[in-house]
Amino acid sequence: MIIVMSKNATKQEIENVEKKLIELGFKTHPIIGEVKTVIGAIGDKRILNTVNITTMPGVESLVPIMKPFKLAGRELKHDPTIVDIGPARIGSNEIAVIAGPCAIESEESFIETAVKVKEAGACILRGGAFKPRSSPYSFQGLEEEGLKIMAKAREKTGLKIVTEVVDTRDVELVASYADIIQIGARNMQNFRLLHEVGLTSKPILLKRGLAATIEEWLMAAEYIMAAGNDKIILCERGIRTYETSTRNTVDISAIPVVKELSHLPIIVDPSHAAGNWKYVGALSKAAVAAGADGLIIEVHIDPPNALSDGPQSLRPPKFKQLMEELEPVAKAVGRDILKIA
Amino acid sequence: MIIVMSKNATKQEIENVEKKLIELGFKTHPIIGEVKTVIGAIGDKRILNTVNITTMPGVESLVPIMKPFKLAGRELKHDPTIVDIGPARIGSNEIAVIAGPCAIESEESFIETAVKVKEAGACILRGGAFKPRSSPYSFQGLEEEGLKIMAKAREKTGLKIVTEVVDTRDVELVASYADIIQIGARNMQNFRLLHEVGLTSKPILLKRGLAATIEEWLMAAEYIMAAGNDKIILCERGIRTYETSTRNTVDISAIPVVKELSHLPIIVDPSHAAGNWKYVGALSKAAVAAGADGLIIEVHIDPPNALSDGPQSLRPPKFKQLMEELEPVAKAVGRDILKIA
Amino acid sequence: MIIVMSKNATKQEIENVEKKLIELGFKTHPIIGEVKTVIGAIGDKRILNTVNITTMPGVESLVPIMKPFKLAGRELKHDPTIVDIGPARIGSNEIAVIAGPCAIESEESFIETAVKVKEAGACILRGGAFKPRSSPYSFQGLEEEGLKIMAKAREKTGLKIVTEVVDTRDVELVASYADIIQIGARNMQNFRLLHEVGLTSKPILLKRGLAATIEEWLMAAEYIMAAGNDKIILCERGIRTYETSTRNTVDISAIPVVKELSHLPIIVDPSHAAGNWKYVGALSKAAVAAGADGLIIEVHIDPPNALSDGPQSLRPPKFKQLMEELEPVAKAVGRDILKIA
Amino acid sequence: MIIVMSKNATKQEIENVEKKLIELGFKTHPIIGEVKTVIGAIGDKRILNTVNITTMPGVESLVPIMKPFKLAGRELKHDPTIVDIGPARIGSNEIAVIAGPCAIESEESFIETAVKVKEAGACILRGGAFKPRSSPYSFQGLEEEGLKIMAKAREKTGLKIVTEVVDTRDVELVASYADIIQIGARNMQNFRLLHEVGLTSKPILLKRGLAATIEEWLMAAEYIMAAGNDKIILCERGIRTYETSTRNTVDISAIPVVKELSHLPIIVDPSHAAGNWKYVGALSKAAVAAGADGLIIEVHIDPPNALSDGPQSLRPPKFKQLMEELEPVAKAVGRDILKIA
Repeated sequence: MIIVMSKNATKQEIENVEKKLIELGFKTHPIIGEVKTVIGAIGDKRILNTVNITTMPGVESLVPIMKPFKLAGRELKHDPTIVDIGPARIGSNEIAVIAGPCAIESEESFIETAVKVKEAGACILRGGAFKPRSSPYSFQGLEEEGLKIMAKAREKTGLKIVTEVVDTRDVELVASYADIIQIGARNMQNFRLLHEVGLTSKPILLKRGLAATIEEWLMAAEYIMAAGNDKIILCERGIRTYETSTRNTVDISAIPVVKELSHLPIIVDPSHAAGNWKYVGALSKAAVAAGADGLIIEVHIDPPNALSDGPQSLRPPKFKQLMEELEPVAKAVGRDILKIA
Repeated sequence: MIIVMSKNATKQEIENVEKKLIELGFKTHPIIGEVKTVIGAIGDKRILNTVNITTMPGVESLVPIMKPFKLAGRELKHDPTIVDIGPARIGSNEIAVIAGPCAIESEESFIETAVKVKEAGACILRGGAFKPRSSPYSFQGLEEEGLKIMAKAREKTGLKIVTEVVDTRDVELVASYADIIQIGARNMQNFRLLHEVGLTSKPILLKRGLAATIEEWLMAAEYIMAAGNDKIILCERGIRTYETSTRNTVDISAIPVVKELSHLPIIVDPSHAAGNWKYVGALSKAAVAAGADGLIIEVHIDPPNALSDGPQSLRPPKFKQLMEELEPVAKAVGRDILKIA
Repeated sequence: MIIVMSKNATKQEIENVEKKLIELGFKTHPIIGEVKTVIGAIGDKRILNTVNITTMPGVESLVPIMKPFKLAGRELKHDPTIVDIGPARIGSNEIAVIAGPCAIESEESFIETAVKVKEAGACILRGGAFKPRSSPYSFQGLEEEGLKIMAKAREKTGLKIVTEVVDTRDVELVASYADIIQIGARNMQNFRLLHEVGLTSKPILLKRGLAATIEEWLMAAEYIMAAGNDKIILCERGIRTYETSTRNTVDISAIPVVKELSHLPIIVDPSHAAGNWKYVGALSKAAVAAGADGLIIEVHIDPPNALSDGPQSLRPPKFKQLMEELEPVAKAVGRDILKIA
Repeated sequence: MIIVMSKNATKQEIENVEKKLIELGFKTHPIIGEVKTVIGAIGDKRILNTVNITTMPGVESLVPIMKPFKLAGRELKHDPTIVDIGPARIGSNEIAVIAGPCAIESEESFIETAVKVKEAGACILRGGAFKPRSSPYSFQGLEEEGLKIMAKAREKTGLKIVTEVVDTRDVELVASYADIIQIGARNMQNFRLLHEVGLTSKPILLKRGLAATIEEWLMAAEYIMAAGNDKIILCERGIRTYETSTRNTVDISAIPVVKELSHLPIIVDPSHAAGNWKYVGALSKAAVAAGADGLIIEVHIDPPNALSDGPQSLRPPKFKQLMEELEPVAKAVGRDILKIA
């Protein structure tokens, strides 16, 4: 940690800051520059609330040297984490494609979709039983009924299932059905929910918040890991920018940045990123080429009648075609598309 | 609602869209332009999932004409809402100043702060018992112990209290102590939590999300209102932008925009917006001049030792001075600073 | 164009708006809804300043139906534009890779770089003679001397050259040396400069502005085309967002969006987007996979001693390796990397 | 400057960086931490291209300690700059209100507007003769004819005039008519234009770029000052964010931030910030309350027929009323509205 003192800081103020740092357990190294003094403070005290030092008289700013995340970072664990979900593994050399509708609407349609996405080559099934919708008047999901339908689809197809939890009170219920628990973008900083899913033993699909920095996202992973669960799959789903031609702007650079900072696997959701099925193909290929460990794609058998997110859903034949097109892209970067029996 | 058909839409596609709209209960008015056809669809069907029409063949885009919020909007209720909290009223001609520390740290320091902010002229006391912190290693609040301290401070000073709830499981508990329940920025789209506080009878202080649009914010209010609680105070607290010289960028235009779209009162949190106590004075005056119904300001008796958000907290003497400076600004726009006995 | 009248608009106000629209040459189609009236206005009057209609009493908003660009759009010209530069062609099935240093620093180093990027497979040579730098104290480029060095490098290698112009007064000079004239991000809305390069017969590489929407970018192309020059290559180079782990956020979705809206070719600059050479490989592959028609990559023989943008420059061996890795990605999406003799 | 070495940096790599820093004229102070080594480098070498050090093996990042601007900063010149324009002075205790139409459309209408804004209390007259418009089909201004009309309006009213220059070739011409030369938001990083106006002796109104950071804006001022002209008035005009309810988001915090970092005066343009005349009043008052040294407001005698920016223009009676309302706000913060005879 570096403390930058302001140009006009007095000798006394500099000494007070040093004294405070020593009290907090740091070793200090002042460097007296031509205009300003800076104080190097040695000691990895990420858990201290050192930010308050900036309120001491004479302090201009504080520059952290260590990243605030430990468990999610590459510093303590260099080797990539592979999250194991039955036959599927995320983070290995094989790219996992998760697919399914935004919301579970009925047993019939969901199972039909499940069968079709499996045929097309998806290795995990997605579906929403608890839906966080921006309007209270929109369809909010079938709740436990939806979870039961998912379980039937799993039985029918052999595909493992991922579904979102939106309330701490439902974590136990969702964990009893799901193979992967999803934390949605709107709950990325719902710290109680992060803690609660951290107490389960299920893998967690952690979406990046609507306008979260990569550091905040990794700190959300840190919450889950600090509670004891290290089976985390990060999911880039587009960030909020001024550009309106897509619903969000997919931050494709997040893939190499996360790979550098963290050992956790990262997948991409091109459907929510774009908000438009027409762009899903191009973004899926870009994600694979940039090094993503997987994709999560919305597929619906009848988008105009979908109860949620119709505009961004692929129909099964388009999805099948995309799966075929992804194969050579994966191979071009030395990987494969994960296939399960 | 206006449906814009693409340049190449066929006659059949246009007819299919019209048919679908009629099925959904709309009256349709096609307008055949030189290049494109648009279809006007009459009927206020905000609760239908009409967005899926964009997935029908030949459709280019859909333009909503009505705002998606009803209860929070000015259309059904034109007169401004005044939220009544004991002696304080928010939304009236008198500007309410809420003050206190970010987190409750101890009974002694909190009561000392409470006494001082009351002396300086604050009319409501803030304090955090459940703290949503970006790091799992930071102080997370005293929880119920903190609520009890708040209650004591209320008894001592007569000031009503506002505090945040971060988990659906704590709503009942927090409601049993607080006079106003706060929904923090990170939970603005925690829809379950919105619904749950909507079931209480307590006024709700609803902070704008980190990167929420004004429309999304009003939809969050709509969630609370749809559950039966219309005592909502909106709180602008800065939005996320590319500018890093302040923690967030306070969106001062949100004040007149909200006043135009909604009947709900709006206050401003200059402390979280700026992230730096030096800017709190200028932003507070700007908010009052722009028409805000109140302010919520962080005050701490010893910022360098604060357990949360020290850098943006004012010391009591600075806060007292600010209160004195706000008085003429309020009068300059034809209002007063609310004072309670 | 659709004019939305406010809920309280009077009959007289609605009539006045209709009258005004008819005066401007539109045919009007009012649609009287349950709450609001909207007026459809037929007639492609993109050149009229119709936005002022929103200032008429009773008008709430105006919804354009037609895109504001004509020449740059797909509506008048559906077939993709291929820009021909000597042996290279941009916009064809073959992906063009442009490479070279940010700034031309000396004849020796530039020619050495030129030879190396050619060997590695680049088909066009980039280099800056006029540098727009954010500090007046930074190296501003060798100006005409730099152009002469570029010409020598072209002679030596056979590679065509692209270089930026930053001042209307230099357009003639730059056009006399360059094979492609670059308009940098900071000048994307320097409309006089756009007009001036539009008067030349040289292909124009038009970078997207720092925070430009896709629509504004296409309007910048429209400026050049309106002046008579339709040889435009669009270049996505990252947009400004709140995320700081990369210098800019490359908007990879811009590729399919531009392909849908415009017939112009689009290339990507992964070096300026990332601001960090480590991410250039991943972003280059993503761009090719997403459908880009080319790349422009910074290569420097000695990045630590570069006078501009060292941190984002690849050394020649890394660039060579990237060229080899791009080949299979191009093939995976049915294309090739353009090679010249 | 602080150089942060990566966790895995070798002893040799650390030594190489130190050696390089010493070569560049710095004194070095390595601090060996528990995990990483950082090197403090003393010496104010803002003009060196030290950023390239980040490309040396083992370097993780570089943290500048000094601000990159010298002339525009408070470090060398602490006292506030007051820009003197005939009877008006910007940066003093009196707040200057500049008003007039976006574009000069005709002599008659411009002079009528000039007379009216003077009567209402404006102290400087604005008007555009060269208009940077996002569409090539929009009205581009009357050019020199417009400048002549401005000069006549000055003669008639005694108001000094401010107008924009958009091309280096026009600087001399514009300087021969204008009392203040405006650099528009789109040209804030048109460095050649900055340099050129820096060579004149006229005060410069420097608008903040569409998505410029405060630091970039002060660096633009630095360009002008480095060319010899220190009469700069900064103008906040809203920044680009994701929020669409206003055209831009006025960054009101920029006022106290600029006051802290720089000695230059700062004014606010509420008209371009909001893009809607309805919000101009609230934003004007907020700007004055936050400490702005002036305002620049668009006034048009007939907004529905304005050739540019009608929607955000006030009619003269509204402007007069606003001037009356601003008076008590200015007094509330210990200032006055500047009045000229």
